[in-house]
Amino acid sequence: MTRNELIHQIKVKRSFLCVGLDTDIQKIPTHLLDYEDPVFEFNRQIIEATADLCVAYKPNIAFYESMGGAGWESLRKTWGILPKDCFSIADAKRGDIGNTSERYAKAFFDQQHSGLGFDAITVAPYMGHDSVQPFLQFQGKWTIILALTSNTGGMDFQAITDAGGVPLFERVIQKANTWGNTANLMYVVGATRGQAFESVRKHAPDHFLLVPGVGAQGGDLQEVCKYGMTADCGLLVNATRSIIYASNGTDFAERARQEAHILQQQMERELVARGVV
Amino acid sequence: MTRNELIHQIKVKRSFLCVGLDTDIQKIPTHLLDYEDPVFEFNRQIIEATADLCVAYKPNIAFYESMGGAGWESLRKTWGILPKDCFSIADAKRGDIGNTSERYAKAFFDQQHSGLGFDAITVAPYMGHDSVQPFLQFQGKWTIILALTSNTGGMDFQAITDAGGVPLFERVIQKANTWGNTANLMYVVGATRGQAFESVRKHAPDHFLLVPGVGAQGGDLQEVCKYGMTADCGLLVNATRSIIYASNGTDFAERARQEAHILQQQMERELVARGVV
Repeated sequence: MTRNELIHQIKVKRSFLCVGLDTDIQKIPTHLLDYEDPVFEFNRQIIEATADLCVAYKPNIAFYESMGGAGWESLRKTWGILPKDCFSIADAKRGDIGNTSERYAKAFFDQQHSGLGFDAITVAPYMGHDSVQPFLQFQGKWTIILALTSNTGGMDFQAITDAGGVPLFERVIQKANTWGNTANLMYVVGATRGQAFESVRKHAPDHFLLVPGVGAQGGDLQEVCKYGMTADCGLLVNATRSIIYASNGTDFAERARQEAHILQQQMERELVARGVV
Repeated sequence: MTRNELIHQIKVKRSFLCVGLDTDIQKIPTHLLDYEDPVFEFNRQIIEATADLCVAYKPNIAFYESMGGAGWESLRKTWGILPKDCFSIADAKRGDIGNTSERYAKAFFDQQHSGLGFDAITVAPYMGHDSVQPFLQFQGKWTIILALTSNTGGMDFQAITDAGGVPLFERVIQKANTWGNTANLMYVVGATRGQAFESVRKHAPDHFLLVPGVGAQGGDLQEVCKYGMTADCGLLVNATRSIIYASNGTDFAERARQEAHILQQQMERELVARGVV
């Protein structure tokens, strides 16, 4: 999906919601365990219930990988039913030396190779340019680099300042800006980081930001929009647990839809208030 | 495998060689393509040919993951035949928020969960303590944190110095030392980094180091030993392409053994010269 197509979807759906599909077989409603592939059936119903309210889906690969080959198969089937009007993100946080990152790029981008053809992948920057380039070299695909993450450990290294007082996450953005552009590169900035969005926007005024941490992690949507929204919206805000685990009864999909709808309504107000739609 | 068992194996085999199993179906000898699982058959023959010369095996997960569910199955079967006297490392470079890193830990450590029960996993430090703790919490397992990697991009961020002149990779080691100990934590330091081993040893005098970059990447074994070896050896030096792709004919396993033997002989000389054995 191109940048213009993504912006179009945001305007049409009046939403910049990304639904995380971190599907844990121990947390899904027990009546789904009768299905041949409970994880896929859970995802299928969540997607069916939320597709008109969100613009992106983001399975976190750990939840599938922890189930071995069967999990990989659930992921492949899930990718196969993601709606064409939704942006798809493999939340994998990969990164390795060049010839190896190329393999990871193939794993998540190249459908003929692996059965998966996500629009985007999250990438860890620690290993530098040659660990990121193989992802950026895939035509029509997006690389989403970790900048300032939502977890408490995010401060351990990302906030370390250099001799000139610039924190590492800003150095990462400055450097990565030279590797890609606003049509193939995004940054992860946690919703829990509030005013740090100002610093991020100084260095990346036009890049889309993938923003986890709203909902279960406590980030504030209004604050994210105040400091992070651009004329093109420029945000994909992710919620996972507050949506997909809103209920663990037979009404889980309906309750997921209700939670997604509440967020979409909040997002619509922000889009209108800031003149994006 | 415990630290004492690993040191024992190094002394018995007079080797600190780790063989990388980055098995690429496009690079393996074509006669193997007749097997039902060519990747597994390649690994099986490489392991059989090198098991008495090395103390560790390290499949890089990207090569398996890029083949989807079938790749995962090849990995599972490969893990299943790794000799009990060899340390096993999942080179995965994972790292995510706490509840997600816990899933990755289960994926690679918990055999009942995923079919895999590696001794160790490589982890990226960018997301900080709560992204690493779930790996360290697994009893009897090892976490190997990226400190100073062998690739050229390794300098992009790992070498950035703080206001006090301390580079990021040293900050990572200082901080991670407080999370684990010498019996459950190692660091990755690239063989191409030569004298940087001195700085690493200042902060981690007793930790084992996993050292990639000898062979195809040009690192120098003697230099690594000069600056990095401890009284317990303290090194696992990895070679991949120079061993497993020494030949792409029917003699590939025999040639892999020859290359592994050359390295083992060099390692034995270093161990003797520095009084470890």
